[in-house]
Amino acid sequence: MSPVWKDQERGRGGDCVVLGGGLIGLAVAWRAALGGLTVHLADPEPGVGASTAAAGMLAPVTEAHYGEERLLELNLRSARGYPAFTAELEDASGLPTGYDARGTLAVAFDRDDRAVLAETAAYHRKLDLDSTPLTGREARALEPMLAPGVQAALLVERDHQVDNRLLHRALLEAATRAGVRIHRSRAALVVESGRARGVRLESGETLTADHVVLTAGCWSSEIPGLPPDVLPRVRPVRGQILRLAMGTPPLVTRTIRAMVRGRYVYLVPRAHGELVIGATTDELGFDTSVTSGGVYELLRDAHEVVPGITELPLVESRTGLRPGSPDNAPLLGETALPGLIAATGHYRNGVLLTPITADAITALLIDGALPEYAAPFSPQRFGGLS
Amino acid sequence: MSPVWKDQERGRGGDCVVLGGGLIGLAVAWRAALGGLTVHLADPEPGVGASTAAAGMLAPVTEAHYGEERLLELNLRSARGYPAFTAELEDASGLPTGYDARGTLAVAFDRDDRAVLAETAAYHRKLDLDSTPLTGREARALEPMLAPGVQAALLVERDHQVDNRLLHRALLEAATRAGVRIHRSRAALVVESGRARGVRLESGETLTADHVVLTAGCWSSEIPGLPPDVLPRVRPVRGQILRLAMGTPPLVTRTIRAMVRGRYVYLVPRAHGELVIGATTDELGFDTSVTSGGVYELLRDAHEVVPGITELPLVESRTGLRPGSPDNAPLLGETALPGLIAATGHYRNGVLLTPITADAITALLIDGALPEYAAPFSPQRFGGLS
Repeated sequence: MSPVWKDQERGRGGDCVVLGGGLIGLAVAWRAALGGLTVHLADPEPGVGASTAAAGMLAPVTEAHYGEERLLELNLRSARGYPAFTAELEDASGLPTGYDARGTLAVAFDRDDRAVLAETAAYHRKLDLDSTPLTGREARALEPMLAPGVQAALLVERDHQVDNRLLHRALLEAATRAGVRIHRSRAALVVESGRARGVRLESGETLTADHVVLTAGCWSSEIPGLPPDVLPRVRPVRGQILRLAMGTPPLVTRTIRAMVRGRYVYLVPRAHGELVIGATTDELGFDTSVTSGGVYELLRDAHEVVPGITELPLVESRTGLRPGSPDNAPLLGETALPGLIAATGHYRNGVLLTPITADAITALLIDGALPEYAAPFSPQRFGGLS
Repeated sequence: MSPVWKDQERGRGGDCVVLGGGLIGLAVAWRAALGGLTVHLADPEPGVGASTAAAGMLAPVTEAHYGEERLLELNLRSARGYPAFTAELEDASGLPTGYDARGTLAVAFDRDDRAVLAETAAYHRKLDLDSTPLTGREARALEPMLAPGVQAALLVERDHQVDNRLLHRALLEAATRAGVRIHRSRAALVVESGRARGVRLESGETLTADHVVLTAGCWSSEIPGLPPDVLPRVRPVRGQILRLAMGTPPLVTRTIRAMVRGRYVYLVPRAHGELVIGATTDELGFDTSVTSGGVYELLRDAHEVVPGITELPLVESRTGLRPGSPDNAPLLGETALPGLIAATGHYRNGVLLTPITADAITALLIDGALPEYAAPFSPQRFGGLS
């Protein structure tokens, strides 16, 4: 493996090192390499984190929450770009991504759940987001395996899904083909004279670069060498998630998001027969245990929504650690440490925000400025950091 | 690997081939080798079946059912022999077995569960089986993490447990040390002139023997070369079973068997911190899937009994296939095919019956006759077989 200065000697400009090989890191690296930059990426095990745990919902509308309208704008913009992004990626990698535009059905159980769903529908109307209220009967006409107890639903045609595991594999291939050098190693940040200068690998080798892009998800605050207070703290938020095998015909054909007596659960059917059921939200640090209680609650609530899952093989129970920022919106752009760019803190929206994050960070690396739509997500928005 | 005739030429008598390397097969092989026989054992993957899936309860009393008094006698006899059996095995193998005499608590939830428990207590008194009725409060004094909803209990000091995974490992070691030749291969039965003559391995090698002992659990009826109707049919009965990690101090210290609104669930705490929760009873052929519904019901019922399991890591979900005979009692002794001995069909009692089965079959191999206590379990008891 040749040290990075050889590339610099060859005169290729704008070197950057990406620290973290999940979806965000790979997408940034791929796009930056396509933009002509020399890109190195360090990760001891690319894709071991939230990128391959997640359910892959692309759900700006059903994830829209009061008071998060700026995030909604970013989410919608990323969702709009998804078809082109995945088409280009499939072309570049020769691999599928499982992008699937079949739409999402949000369903409600009891009176209270129904009231929440009605409020959601009103919020959608106010923001001009397209969603169609359905009766329980209408919902069951679309998805016959929905429980008789489903009282009401909201059909959201523009909330889609991608197979995040396929997406990760395709990004790894595309990044490699585009010339990104993948170093399967932990890395420490190298800071000199108050500026990020690169990273040091486990081998002792240093990769120097004009910019380091921190894309380490929930581990972003744990990177050795990272000075305190240059970045708002990113914390791990555990999600437990199950994978069942549906066989054919599939039990359900659209993503189903349910509120069951006040608790949320979703079921995401893949075209290839997997049914993803998630997810818990546990603030327990870096503990990646699957717990008895987590699995129980997911299965209980999912059974209420689609009782027919009883006989389906449970093929995987795992956890992922979402990267939560102080306001649960992403941290995009320059940090308080010159040379260090953040692309982390995506919390529940990492898969959805992958294309727009790659666009924004690549623009910053190449043009020297973050696009306007990303400006509200500056890591420096909280103030008070040294 | 020298063919068996070499051993025969060396004059060692009483050769037998054991077909199946689970607990029963290994125990028979070990005891037979100790008795001076030349023993071969064939199994493609010893211990892959029910032997390592099971919970390891040694529960003749809490498993005692109306109308199964002969089986109860056999179970009690095997349970009495367990301490000496495991002591000798630990000595012979140099390995632990996890035999644990801490007793069992049977608990009841609602009024109906309580009525069933009272009937059980009456049945125990009638058969002079030692069990002590407790109030819910008394039960919680012994096991403080029991749910407040536990209304009544029965303390059974003589129902113990063994760590069946350790037991299997120790038996494999002891059998090997005693000279049993383990062939990691599938095997077909070789029948000549109306008599079992040995087995043929995947390599094509034939192991000839005076007796073949069929110890293949739920696969016993599927052995290639087995003539139809020489043995009552053994069917697979799937059990789904979970393993949680308790940490210290352990959440519970005794085996807890509960009836929760008419459904049975058990929790078996191991000294090393594992908590085994089981088990479903599914008649679905050789399907070894863990299902969404199975895991859900086990966790639901176990949570009702010991709510504190919520935070425990769920470290394993698997299935085992119990070998069910037509009357769910074991098939012990000579089959309708001369030279073929059965030691299979142990259904829910395979771990418990391991020592007595080894004793009985070894007596048959060496002395030519099954001990009287095993006679009721002859494979030929059903009649009507050719």
